[in-house]
Amino acid sequence: MIISTKRGTPQQEIDKIIKEFEDKGLSVTLIRGTDYNVFGLVGDTTKIDEKLVAANPYVESVTRVSAPYKRANRLFHEADTVVDVNGIKIGGKEKVVVIGGPCSVEGAEQVCQIARQVKAGGGCMLRGGAYKPRTSPYAFQGLGTEGIMDMVKAREETGLPIVSELMSEDKIPEFEEYVDVVQIGARNMQNFNLLKAVGKMHKPVLLKRGLANTIEEWIMSAEYIMAGGNENVMFCERGIRTFEKYTRNTLDLSVIPILKQKSHLPVIIDPSHATGDWRLVEAMSLAAVAAGADGLIIEVHNDPEHAWSDGAQSLKPAKFAQVVEKCRAVARAVGREM
Amino acid sequence: MIISTKRGTPQQEIDKIIKEFEDKGLSVTLIRGTDYNVFGLVGDTTKIDEKLVAANPYVESVTRVSAPYKRANRLFHEADTVVDVNGIKIGGKEKVVVIGGPCSVEGAEQVCQIARQVKAGGGCMLRGGAYKPRTSPYAFQGLGTEGIMDMVKAREETGLPIVSELMSEDKIPEFEEYVDVVQIGARNMQNFNLLKAVGKMHKPVLLKRGLANTIEEWIMSAEYIMAGGNENVMFCERGIRTFEKYTRNTLDLSVIPILKQKSHLPVIIDPSHATGDWRLVEAMSLAAVAAGADGLIIEVHNDPEHAWSDGAQSLKPAKFAQVVEKCRAVARAVGREM
Amino acid sequence: MIISTKRGTPQQEIDKIIKEFEDKGLSVTLIRGTDYNVFGLVGDTTKIDEKLVAANPYVESVTRVSAPYKRANRLFHEADTVVDVNGIKIGGKEKVVVIGGPCSVEGAEQVCQIARQVKAGGGCMLRGGAYKPRTSPYAFQGLGTEGIMDMVKAREETGLPIVSELMSEDKIPEFEEYVDVVQIGARNMQNFNLLKAVGKMHKPVLLKRGLANTIEEWIMSAEYIMAGGNENVMFCERGIRTFEKYTRNTLDLSVIPILKQKSHLPVIIDPSHATGDWRLVEAMSLAAVAAGADGLIIEVHNDPEHAWSDGAQSLKPAKFAQVVEKCRAVARAVGREM
Amino acid sequence: MIISTKRGTPQQEIDKIIKEFEDKGLSVTLIRGTDYNVFGLVGDTTKIDEKLVAANPYVESVTRVSAPYKRANRLFHEADTVVDVNGIKIGGKEKVVVIGGPCSVEGAEQVCQIARQVKAGGGCMLRGGAYKPRTSPYAFQGLGTEGIMDMVKAREETGLPIVSELMSEDKIPEFEEYVDVVQIGARNMQNFNLLKAVGKMHKPVLLKRGLANTIEEWIMSAEYIMAGGNENVMFCERGIRTFEKYTRNTLDLSVIPILKQKSHLPVIIDPSHATGDWRLVEAMSLAAVAAGADGLIIEVHNDPEHAWSDGAQSLKPAKFAQVVEKCRAVARAVGREM
Repeated sequence: MIISTKRGTPQQEIDKIIKEFEDKGLSVTLIRGTDYNVFGLVGDTTKIDEKLVAANPYVESVTRVSAPYKRANRLFHEADTVVDVNGIKIGGKEKVVVIGGPCSVEGAEQVCQIARQVKAGGGCMLRGGAYKPRTSPYAFQGLGTEGIMDMVKAREETGLPIVSELMSEDKIPEFEEYVDVVQIGARNMQNFNLLKAVGKMHKPVLLKRGLANTIEEWIMSAEYIMAGGNENVMFCERGIRTFEKYTRNTLDLSVIPILKQKSHLPVIIDPSHATGDWRLVEAMSLAAVAAGADGLIIEVHNDPEHAWSDGAQSLKPAKFAQVVEKCRAVARAVGREM
Repeated sequence: MIISTKRGTPQQEIDKIIKEFEDKGLSVTLIRGTDYNVFGLVGDTTKIDEKLVAANPYVESVTRVSAPYKRANRLFHEADTVVDVNGIKIGGKEKVVVIGGPCSVEGAEQVCQIARQVKAGGGCMLRGGAYKPRTSPYAFQGLGTEGIMDMVKAREETGLPIVSELMSEDKIPEFEEYVDVVQIGARNMQNFNLLKAVGKMHKPVLLKRGLANTIEEWIMSAEYIMAGGNENVMFCERGIRTFEKYTRNTLDLSVIPILKQKSHLPVIIDPSHATGDWRLVEAMSLAAVAAGADGLIIEVHNDPEHAWSDGAQSLKPAKFAQVVEKCRAVARAVGREM
Repeated sequence: MIISTKRGTPQQEIDKIIKEFEDKGLSVTLIRGTDYNVFGLVGDTTKIDEKLVAANPYVESVTRVSAPYKRANRLFHEADTVVDVNGIKIGGKEKVVVIGGPCSVEGAEQVCQIARQVKAGGGCMLRGGAYKPRTSPYAFQGLGTEGIMDMVKAREETGLPIVSELMSEDKIPEFEEYVDVVQIGARNMQNFNLLKAVGKMHKPVLLKRGLANTIEEWIMSAEYIMAGGNENVMFCERGIRTFEKYTRNTLDLSVIPILKQKSHLPVIIDPSHATGDWRLVEAMSLAAVAAGADGLIIEVHNDPEHAWSDGAQSLKPAKFAQVVEKCRAVARAVGREM
Repeated sequence: MIISTKRGTPQQEIDKIIKEFEDKGLSVTLIRGTDYNVFGLVGDTTKIDEKLVAANPYVESVTRVSAPYKRANRLFHEADTVVDVNGIKIGGKEKVVVIGGPCSVEGAEQVCQIARQVKAGGGCMLRGGAYKPRTSPYAFQGLGTEGIMDMVKAREETGLPIVSELMSEDKIPEFEEYVDVVQIGARNMQNFNLLKAVGKMHKPVLLKRGLANTIEEWIMSAEYIMAGGNENVMFCERGIRTFEKYTRNTLDLSVIPILKQKSHLPVIIDPSHATGDWRLVEAMSLAAVAAGADGLIIEVHNDPEHAWSDGAQSLKPAKFAQVVEKCRAVARAVGREM
């Protein structure tokens, strides 16, 4: 950690600062400049709060050099984490996985039909929302437990593991029992109580990036889950909020090489929520695979115009199969199976 | 709601669209253009899902004309809502209120001392965090119930009502019993389960704006709470996330006249979290009052350099009193008491 | 164009609005709602200024249905535009092109050497800045005319056409004589005087997207150039400004399918400026080709650590050749040569 | 400047880095950490290019401690700069100034009439665009020289100095002769050639902030002008681009205390362009004055609905006078005349 103090800071204040850090077991080096003095702190600075240091009126700026995460940090865990979902391996040099399914579960028949189509089209897991975070209190909020049980039926029929979003702690027993991958949605990426609770679960977690969260904050949210004991975390990029209006969000594919460098956890891309437009899903899926994604999560619906939510971004099953086929070719071109 | 379809949409598709909306009780007008056809829908469109309409491959764009909120909408509730907190009135033409206190409660003695100073400095409510949303799992997470009880002591001593952040549903009985204003933090603005639960509470709610949420989404979150039955909602702007690096967030003061126009609920400004820098708090407080804010919520700490969180943005008590004094002059200049 | 007026707008104001538009040759349909009235305008609305319409105090909102661009619009020009640069074809189903070279020209020897390496590595054009837009007045501003002449030497030696940034109108004769593709930089995307002047030039234009410009504004800037008579415009995405701090900018690859749908002009991707980090260039290049880019523009430098600008994002020649090789495999996988 | 290198950087690379900086006359301190090494550089680092340093593959991060600007820096120029425009003083403890006028000059009669009304309403300078930066090539581009001459007439009649936007170097002689304050528009904030040219002019400059430019980049653009010899620069905030849709831009009033702290130049606020909505201008003007702005620039039009540009954000003269009157009360409340 690097701290700079303002011109004219009295020597006694400088001494006070040095003493305070040394008392915390850190080694402090002082560099005197013309307009500023700079302190370098060496040691375990993860527990030092930058904002607190900055509260000192003599302090000009505080810069963290080491990353504030440990468990999720590639520096301390060189090998890729490979997450195992009912025998399907995700991450490292494993096959690129495809997760498909409807935004919302609308009934057993619907979800079973789509599950069969997802499987036929090359998908290896089924997604489906039973608890839906909706901007409007008047919009459809999901089928709840019934929806989860509908997905369980689809799994029984097709063998596809199921991925669903958990919105609150009280459903953890239900998810622990029935769901294979627990999704934490973008709006809950910094719902720290939920993250802590999920850290105690025994199921892999798909952690979506918040709408306006930096990669560092995102890794810190993974760190929350891992600190609780659950190390099976997968990142899922689903677009960030920008000024652009032609897409719902801006898909940030640079997270793939960055996360691979900073962390050892798998990276999944969601082109459906990122763009909000099914016509853009193919191009963005191909790009994600080319950039090194470990998997894709794509919305598939048999009748998008009558979907109960997010129809505009869902692929029809035939189109889904086509996209997977094309992605497979790209995966091979970058030296990976799919 | 206005829907435009692409050039070359077959007549039969157009008829199908018209029928579908008419079946929902809406009246439909078709305007034929050269490159596009446009449909205007009249009736209660709040339940129509724009994204679903956009799923139709013949649809080019969907535009909502009426606002998707009702209870929070000034159009259907002309009079200002005035929220009553233990006799203190907020909103409408009432006095501008000042809420002061530490970011985190650090103990009974600390919070009682600050409460006395806040009161002496012109504050009429006490803020303090007992449950803290922290980016790092290794940072101080708040004193919990103990912190709430410390604030209760401060209230007993000073008479100041207390404002504190609720992070999860399981603490609702505690907040219902001890806290006077329930704060929903920025990171939970779209934690819809929490909003629904708070909608059943009997305490006024201070709803902070999410880091990257539009004003419309923010009003929709108020709508969630109001739809549950709790109409005592106050908006609290605390800065939005932008590309700027000299401030932690960008304080968006234009929300004041906009919310006053679109809604009837009170608007509070938090200059401390918005800027992240105590040196900017005075100027932004003055600006907020001049723009018509119904209140300010300001971080105050007796020893910011040793605060357990967010010291960099806390005012010392003497500075706080000075800021309130200056704000009072500005309030009077714009025709309001404080 | 769709215009909605507020509840309670007097009939006489409504009549006035209708008359005004009819006088401009537009056909007007009025849809009466409960809370709003809506007008639909049919005809050539490209010359109507939305902001002016919105100035009417009775107007609630104004929405444009047809795109404000004509020449750049796919709707009126179905076939892909293929730009010809000294015989190299860009766009449509042509080969994906690679443009390589240093950020700044540093001398004839340097640029000739890099040109040979770019060519050997699979590049088909040479980029190099002679006039540099630098944030600091104290930073190196480019070699100017000397730099252009150095590039000309490199072209003589290697046959590679040259791409360079034009920053002001007074250099147009120089660029018209010596340069093969005129680059308009991100910071000049809305320097409308420069766009008009470039519209009179006889050289293809590489139009970079502004740091915070929407796709629509970008197409409108192409429209400026085309309206002047120069139809050989290529879009170049180089990242947009967001809150993320791990990359210099956020590369928005969704522009590829969107521009292909809205416009007929070629799309080039610049992964070097977008990320600001050479370690991310490979992954982003592969992604761009997979998503359907017509070309890449990549910074190449023989000694990045001693480059006079932007070394951090430059590839060394051997790495460049490797990236091109890998991109070629991806291009083939998506049915395209490179 | 602080540089950190990666774990495992060979000693010989570290020595090389140290030598390189020492050769440039800087003093280097090395701090060895567990995971990183950190170098502190002391001396004049304004000419060191961060990006170049970052190009070294062993370098992890580069952080600038001293600001990269000198002439605009409060650190080296403690006293407030007061700009003199034909005897009107702007900045420091001088009166808060109000600049009013139409977005576009539409003719001598119009601009003279508005000038009289601006003066009567409390304005002390006249703004008016003769050269207009428009997103669409088909929109009205301004009256050009004729518009400038119309403003000159208005000045002759009212005595109000005139402010107008300069878009290209070729009009500099015209502006030098006829205009009193040269405005650099948001889209040209980083048109560095124009900034250099304006640095040679003898007229004060109103430098608008770019749509997505940081405060640091903005000060650097002022530095460009000052480095050319023209020290009479005034900052003008006009809103930044964010995700919010209810306003055209987001007015960032925190720039006022920040610029006052970092720089010594005056700060003017433009609430009209920032919000794009005349209904928000009053509240934002009051807020700006309360926050310490040295002036306001407000769009005024006698017939906004028929303005040739930007009618939606223009105040009518009577409303303008009212806003100025209210601002005066706020100015007094914060200890300033207006």
